[in-house]
Amino acid sequence: MNLTASRELARELDSKDPLASLRSHFDIPEGTLYFDGNSLGPLTFRSREVLHRTIEFEWRERLIRSWDEDWLEMPARVGNLIAPIIGALPDTVICADNTSINLHKALMAAVALRKDRSEIVVDINNFPTDIYIAQSVASQHGMKLVAVPANEIVSAINANTAVVTATHVDYRTAHILDVEGITSAAHSNGALMVWDLAHTAGAVPFHAADLDVDFAVGCGYKYLNGGPGAPAFIYVAPRLLAQSGQPLQGWWGHADPFEFEVDYRPAVGIARFLTGTPTVLSMKSMEAALEVFDGVSLRKIRDKSMSLTTFFVDLFDAHLAEKGFTLESPRDPESRGSHVALGFAGGKDLVAAMASEGIIADFRPPDLMRFGFAPLYNTHQEVVSLVERLASY
Amino acid sequence: MNLTASRELARELDSKDPLASLRSHFDIPEGTLYFDGNSLGPLTFRSREVLHRTIEFEWRERLIRSWDEDWLEMPARVGNLIAPIIGALPDTVICADNTSINLHKALMAAVALRKDRSEIVVDINNFPTDIYIAQSVASQHGMKLVAVPANEIVSAINANTAVVTATHVDYRTAHILDVEGITSAAHSNGALMVWDLAHTAGAVPFHAADLDVDFAVGCGYKYLNGGPGAPAFIYVAPRLLAQSGQPLQGWWGHADPFEFEVDYRPAVGIARFLTGTPTVLSMKSMEAALEVFDGVSLRKIRDKSMSLTTFFVDLFDAHLAEKGFTLESPRDPESRGSHVALGFAGGKDLVAAMASEGIIADFRPPDLMRFGFAPLYNTHQEVVSLVERLASY
Repeated sequence: MNLTASRELARELDSKDPLASLRSHFDIPEGTLYFDGNSLGPLTFRSREVLHRTIEFEWRERLIRSWDEDWLEMPARVGNLIAPIIGALPDTVICADNTSINLHKALMAAVALRKDRSEIVVDINNFPTDIYIAQSVASQHGMKLVAVPANEIVSAINANTAVVTATHVDYRTAHILDVEGITSAAHSNGALMVWDLAHTAGAVPFHAADLDVDFAVGCGYKYLNGGPGAPAFIYVAPRLLAQSGQPLQGWWGHADPFEFEVDYRPAVGIARFLTGTPTVLSMKSMEAALEVFDGVSLRKIRDKSMSLTTFFVDLFDAHLAEKGFTLESPRDPESRGSHVALGFAGGKDLVAAMASEGIIADFRPPDLMRFGFAPLYNTHQEVVSLVERLASY
Repeated sequence: MNLTASRELARELDSKDPLASLRSHFDIPEGTLYFDGNSLGPLTFRSREVLHRTIEFEWRERLIRSWDEDWLEMPARVGNLIAPIIGALPDTVICADNTSINLHKALMAAVALRKDRSEIVVDINNFPTDIYIAQSVASQHGMKLVAVPANEIVSAINANTAVVTATHVDYRTAHILDVEGITSAAHSNGALMVWDLAHTAGAVPFHAADLDVDFAVGCGYKYLNGGPGAPAFIYVAPRLLAQSGQPLQGWWGHADPFEFEVDYRPAVGIARFLTGTPTVLSMKSMEAALEVFDGVSLRKIRDKSMSLTTFFVDLFDAHLAEKGFTLESPRDPESRGSHVALGFAGGKDLVAAMASEGIIADFRPPDLMRFGFAPLYNTHQEVVSLVERLASY
């Protein structure tokens, strides 16, 4: 196998990459090739710096006073950093809890707005937690859960459908679902739409406001680089906010949490989707990591992502197909998110062996190797090294 | 006002304090008098150390591999550190989410076990989030919420009662509720009991197993010193675990989360009360802080707490009553948790003024000043300084 020409091309592509300087925000260990930003983004220098300040100044020195001085506003502030990344207007996104919990809130809110309907439609290849949460909501409301493959969602939606939920970018294949088609099918049937943006936010553009999506949820620890178990987010369309409630109505979602009133009165805006006290350390890390996105064009992020995944697929065709790997992600870059999945019978062992050498990807049963190509820090030269290692398994 | 004799007594009490050495675990800033451990515990040296390792080694260097190497087991591990502090058996407590969310899980699980009943009884002076969550659960199930003062809870329980929930130590007055009487009234009427241990865990002993309590929840950032917004915990009686479910059934509560099955199958034990991915940074801080409790007698913690609050009440009688302060906590130390509340018309301003001098307490409307006396780090000499400052307002 001769990768000399590919290395040359990679160097050229990297030298022209308008986002190349963003890698300097990330403290990726020397010698590590990291292709798992779709599972856990790496540490940014800003997260380290902000966590240090949070621990030493805000917690140690200011103690309880930091709530008033900074932390109370943090969930809203972080929500507003996420909003432009998913095409949402200010004050329609808030940072809270984890994705499963936020999906529960969104589905419960949606079902409460469509009480007279009897079905929830879900992508059967959705990330399992989304299906489990939908099963729970359906069961609580005596509704039928209709689980179908992504390409059958539109035809499964009808006048009985209360809400449709799917993940924008498939967690296994990176297939990008037809967000316009599915959202408009839901709306034209009077149903509500909840998108999970776990594999979208930070890597693939989304247009929550332009598409008039009803609800969206997503994850902070993947392409947003918030840190391990970083809190998640929830988006609610402004037109629905005033009429939407959610069952986890803790004090943080109250209109005036520090008045300690006996009756729950939901906050006016998106804050009604908060529950209890936010995890400050984890949320601070997330807030810091989001600074990297400041002023960065989402179009350029998408172009870089497509360039990386396309380069990998080209090298797959040239060097990996003949070795028994199969491409399990879409060929068309427009239909593909920011990771590429390869089928390989010995995938689990190979991922483990590579990890021990510092080449990090992940594995999903039964035999899927996933390679995340994060547009903020991965390079085309790294892609060549990855292919070289895979080909010599 | 002459506090010379009190200072002398305080020095003597502190010199005999068997827990005195524990203060060395806490990095409390020079010159700060901290009486708000009931709202936010201070930084421990161990939390700083562990957070540093989590950031630099587990996140930065090991990246995604840390899930297998450490983080996956963390919620169970931290739960098992909390278990002895609340008198629970191993593997009956798990660390997750926040208190509001855990209360929702407990109440929903309880109501599902008592479907044929129609009422939820709650302490009307409970911390508001507990009432809001109970309101939500009652409303979802078409149940009646019976909100009564603590001393009327027993008589409010009857054959219609599905579940009773109250906070063991009142967040305003520190009044300790009659946990035996209320729990046994619930049980003898066939109802389930959910205790909130927010102001209990780490300062006041609790006997979850001996009392055969059904569910308990509590907070990580008060006397457990887990850090700002530290994750909370939930306890479920082992006899109920197999039959209990909860609506936030995300992948972390699945019997085999990494098999990515399409159908939800609850984990065998307490892990079924997990939801989604835990906030690693916040939970790591908590785990480290809990090391301080290792080998420390809960009896000695309680003795020290009662000694501190009794000393404060004695000094109140001698110096503060005459200045217009009123005692809003029980006089009997056996009925009192680890904070003392004073009524004072100018309380809000006084708390603010004192905070600017580094004497930190907190305020709850309408006119309650709360002083937390944390047995792990507060001293009797600090209590004298506090009274001196209050008396000279």
